[in-house]
Amino acid sequence: MKALVYQGPGSIAWQEKPAPGIQKPTDAIVKIETTTICGTDLHILKGDVPTVESGRILGHEGVGVVTEVGEAVTEISVGDRVIVSCISACGKCSYCLEGVYSHCLADEGASGIGWILGHLIDGTQAEYVRVPFAETSLHQAPEGVAAEEAAMISDILPTGHEIGIRYGAVEPGDVIAVIGAGPVGLAAITTASLYGPSRVVAIDIDANRVEQAKRFGASDGIVSSDSDWKEQVLALTDGLGVDVAIEAVGVPATWDMCLAIVRPGGHVANVGVHGKPVSFPLETAWIQNLTITTGLVNTDTSRMLIKLLAQGRLDAGGFISHRFSLEDIMSAYDTFGRAAETKALKVILTA
Amino acid sequence: MKALVYQGPGSIAWQEKPAPGIQKPTDAIVKIETTTICGTDLHILKGDVPTVESGRILGHEGVGVVTEVGEAVTEISVGDRVIVSCISACGKCSYCLEGVYSHCLADEGASGIGWILGHLIDGTQAEYVRVPFAETSLHQAPEGVAAEEAAMISDILPTGHEIGIRYGAVEPGDVIAVIGAGPVGLAAITTASLYGPSRVVAIDIDANRVEQAKRFGASDGIVSSDSDWKEQVLALTDGLGVDVAIEAVGVPATWDMCLAIVRPGGHVANVGVHGKPVSFPLETAWIQNLTITTGLVNTDTSRMLIKLLAQGRLDAGGFISHRFSLEDIMSAYDTFGRAAETKALKVILTA
Repeated sequence: MKALVYQGPGSIAWQEKPAPGIQKPTDAIVKIETTTICGTDLHILKGDVPTVESGRILGHEGVGVVTEVGEAVTEISVGDRVIVSCISACGKCSYCLEGVYSHCLADEGASGIGWILGHLIDGTQAEYVRVPFAETSLHQAPEGVAAEEAAMISDILPTGHEIGIRYGAVEPGDVIAVIGAGPVGLAAITTASLYGPSRVVAIDIDANRVEQAKRFGASDGIVSSDSDWKEQVLALTDGLGVDVAIEAVGVPATWDMCLAIVRPGGHVANVGVHGKPVSFPLETAWIQNLTITTGLVNTDTSRMLIKLLAQGRLDAGGFISHRFSLEDIMSAYDTFGRAAETKALKVILTA
Repeated sequence: MKALVYQGPGSIAWQEKPAPGIQKPTDAIVKIETTTICGTDLHILKGDVPTVESGRILGHEGVGVVTEVGEAVTEISVGDRVIVSCISACGKCSYCLEGVYSHCLADEGASGIGWILGHLIDGTQAEYVRVPFAETSLHQAPEGVAAEEAAMISDILPTGHEIGIRYGAVEPGDVIAVIGAGPVGLAAITTASLYGPSRVVAIDIDANRVEQAKRFGASDGIVSSDSDWKEQVLALTDGLGVDVAIEAVGVPATWDMCLAIVRPGGHVANVGVHGKPVSFPLETAWIQNLTITTGLVNTDTSRMLIKLLAQGRLDAGGFISHRFSLEDIMSAYDTFGRAAETKALKVILTA
């Protein structure tokens, strides 16, 4: 089969690889119909994720059809159209039993991390993928929803929702600010509406992205290169700051921005993938009654999101900016890697 | 009257000051029976809290008898024996109405901070104190409880409970570690038992304090100067770390220790008063599903704690290590300031 293979920092190739087979009774093999590229894949390509070895097939998102199942698999059948979750969860370790699938302890690739596809084992940017723990790591794709929309359930919709909105403890009437209006920031913005905030403020350095965020439900937009961006945010509150600030970029400057605009008693939910430490000004923050959260998605709300998607209550199609055939994935990486220029959000690859 | 007056960094004096009078209809005047010294007072003395002006009477804890009330005060009467709360809360601003008394917006001394006694207005280390918002900032002292024990309700018991245990979201069965077994750390340890943790691990650099913590309910103690202190902590868990790490010191090293021992999905509750920023390793923490909290006490659980104290279910007396007469407060500061040597916990001043 053909697959997108990581060749070490700065290098990927679309090349021939052996098709995967069942290795364990709980596995399924999925023929990929649709996949996409995540910001995390670009981090890997840059060499930021040293746990990814050369030769690894990338990708942790996608929709496809089951072609083979292990003998322990009874809830998923050959022929089922499924959404591959970015988290592979055994369903029976102590973390899985508490719903913290992100830190599954099963020894499939690693122990203590549920994100293994396209990271510690081969992923979804290929014609076929082996999915471990198939029954607890695949979802039936909903009828009547396009595969490319269903693929938004693999990662970005639950990530924005769980790590941004739910960890941020968004409540009715809250003013929330989302810093970074890329795909995951937009996923936070679009799922925020489920919780009745009074304002959702999109903040980005790119005026185009700020404008676009309004299509996803942002009530207000602020361009962070404005010298008075902070005053603009405070003017949308009672002057004391936002209830919830969501960091969806992953650099120290945007972390600092969150702390600058959150009110005493407020929440900062970090969603961004960071490459270095940040400074936390505890000499002022100790007295501010802040709650700061970090997290890898648990995907425990994926089924709920699928239900809303099937009802037409989430605009997953809005995330899709470009479409390519799977064999043109190298062009898709190029387009996605130059997102500021190409205005790419999610690029869809169809087999 | 006589009072303990801050004279600028490094200098305090027990000197004559005018006795306070009613300034606003919501005030009460309390004749101090018992007061104590807080670690925060030592920070002020060092010059770490620049908002405290020279000439300020220090102290934010104490028990006394009401001698005068403003004309709007109906719930507190002259002659009542009361506990002064370290938080003065108007009870009617937007923060107070949400129970976040720590960030009361009333313009008594400041706007946005509930800790004003001995900070922005004159405090309790004096023969008399004016208490603003008396009805929402004084508690009736419980019958049958010594004044010196009731004084532990002014600050340390609710601080350890609310900012350590409740913000740390301690649940039955949790393994919790408290780093720093000083008075507030011990208050966290003793109130932890209300939530049924499986283990409460006291960690301190001082072996004497670690041993003492067991008297307050710590199940285990670890001396942090041991080179394998971290392995000792992990050995008390399933190897993955503690559910809740409580920082009760206020320096970067103990913050780092909390992050080193908290498990994925765990909580770090900062209680310590910090003087400088800390480094937050988001490059590893982003994926750890951590919840970090900070806070000034709200005192919203003080009435509950008073009830338990009156039932004999909290050992407030255990905090008291030294007793002085109020006029000997300069000696008490000396003893408390050399706590490592004098083994001081709470020093009690009685008028």
